[in-house]
Amino acid sequence: MNRFERRFATGLRAVAVGALSLASPDAPADTKAATKPPTMQQVIEASKPADWRPLDPQNTLYLDLAAGRVVIELASAYAPLHAANLRTMAHEHYFDGLAILRVQDGFVTQWGDPDAEDKAKARSPGKASRTLAPEFERGIGKELSFTHLPDGDVYAPEVGFSDGMPVARDAKAGKTWLAHCYGMVGAGRDVAEDSGSGAELYVVIGQAPRQLDRNIALVGRVVQGMEWLAALPRGSGPLGFYDKPEQRTSIKSVRLAADVPESERTPLEVLRTDTPTFTALVESRRNRRDDWYKVPAGRIDLCNVPIPVRTPPAKTGG
Amino acid sequence: MNRFERRFATGLRAVAVGALSLASPDAPADTKAATKPPTMQQVIEASKPADWRPLDPQNTLYLDLAAGRVVIELASAYAPLHAANLRTMAHEHYFDGLAILRVQDGFVTQWGDPDAEDKAKARSPGKASRTLAPEFERGIGKELSFTHLPDGDVYAPEVGFSDGMPVARDAKAGKTWLAHCYGMVGAGRDVAEDSGSGAELYVVIGQAPRQLDRNIALVGRVVQGMEWLAALPRGSGPLGFYDKPEQRTSIKSVRLAADVPESERTPLEVLRTDTPTFTALVESRRNRRDDWYKVPAGRIDLCNVPIPVRTPPAKTGG
Repeated sequence: MNRFERRFATGLRAVAVGALSLASPDAPADTKAATKPPTMQQVIEASKPADWRPLDPQNTLYLDLAAGRVVIELASAYAPLHAANLRTMAHEHYFDGLAILRVQDGFVTQWGDPDAEDKAKARSPGKASRTLAPEFERGIGKELSFTHLPDGDVYAPEVGFSDGMPVARDAKAGKTWLAHCYGMVGAGRDVAEDSGSGAELYVVIGQAPRQLDRNIALVGRVVQGMEWLAALPRGSGPLGFYDKPEQRTSIKSVRLAADVPESERTPLEVLRTDTPTFTALVESRRNRRDDWYKVPAGRIDLCNVPIPVRTPPAKTGG
Repeated sequence: MNRFERRFATGLRAVAVGALSLASPDAPADTKAATKPPTMQQVIEASKPADWRPLDPQNTLYLDLAAGRVVIELASAYAPLHAANLRTMAHEHYFDGLAILRVQDGFVTQWGDPDAEDKAKARSPGKASRTLAPEFERGIGKELSFTHLPDGDVYAPEVGFSDGMPVARDAKAGKTWLAHCYGMVGAGRDVAEDSGSGAELYVVIGQAPRQLDRNIALVGRVVQGMEWLAALPRGSGPLGFYDKPEQRTSIKSVRLAADVPESERTPLEVLRTDTPTFTALVESRRNRRDDWYKVPAGRIDLCNVPIPVRTPPAKTGG
């Protein structure tokens, strides 16, 4: 096992954790390790069970494609109306048999009803609302955790993490909002602010399009399975829509985890973002400590911070 | 043609230019258009021929895959040794028949010699160098154009564009360097600073991994064809390497455009980044003017600025 395999032999699906070389003979023993701050891997290995939280089945969607499952954690504290509407739609199997309609390189993958524009054919949302009040930002509440990031932000006065979601804040205005980082899921809308409902969803697959912040409702974050959404063929039509129906990827189903038998769920734990372990992880990413890095950045952008996810370790004892 | 099609009926392959809605009836005539600052599309439509520059065939690589062509502009002003080595390797057909070895979701796609670690099988670089002095940064020279971006940066004291490349600068230190934005191409290296040569290349396919800036030599930028590198299946091995040889994508050829018959070249023009037109384009992206945006960001991140590319308009007259 070479040094890269050692470093990354983990069940985590963290984003962007690699060095770049292919050819890599075993590195010499790191004699400085004892005095160095920990690497991300060391931070995770030293974490305690209480640093992790299981995904709440009432707050987790499974988007199942033929290729695999995409697990989405809903941001109920930031978009409660959209989260509730999505629970209703999932419960009613609204998305089953619908399709991925658009993949615009470097921007978004989007899914929904191919016949949404045709009133005769469009699928009914059933008990779900067709429009929702905009949930583009909310008040800064004491009930929201907030882990401040120290390095500033191009777009907002302050950024950090709240319950596992990347967020921005404007303390003077008393407002906070979810940030359009890689893997964030939002509800497409038309020109009217209240024209989104969750019936058409998109996920960020490229450089964080932060200009969308506060303009559209983000509803959650993909915690596993981005590879099934980000690696799809790009659409050749305007905005990356597929020109031909056969280019679309069919959606097998979208389910609330709570509606799925426990044996069919995907058990996952997310590192809590309001813990000293997470703060140590951020620091390990601000300053890379391995020998490959010659000039540690000393800084980190909100959307470059990985939020580790793992399969829960096997329980021991009775 | 609906309003989105109208807005995006262009030969440009700009990144991240879309609004998000699928269902979109024709918008009402925009009566405010006369008094509004121009949109990106209007800036481009008003551009003059002199705002565009053709790609220099001596400075352009074609990475040809079965799926399509990837066009890479070399950053000769920032990595002259690597650019020269890549010209040599392309001239000697070094990459032909090699493969894409690694696709790590949200990070990089990487290609080179699958047998690089096996001295008996590894392909010889011929007249090209196996190692190169590091070209991770350079002095700020008067010969370099620099278009300053006004909104700051998390990682560097100053950012902007130089001859079509996203760059960062530290004026006090007198240094400038290429920035790891989406589509930037770099030369993989091992732990030693001089262990890269261009024989193993990577391209950024996710959120800009700016922590790599000043740690590795960027050598150019994909100006067309990112969809052939960013949509490949992710590797399931450590760091996104493919576990099995058959998962790799074969490289048909890598050629310097100057070595290709003119009839087989891909004629492209890039918007000059040292023009008032580009500055107007940046402003159009800092503040989106169409009716969809409710809260224009008023700011933009370096890696969110598109650098328009077009097929040259047909020549008229004789």
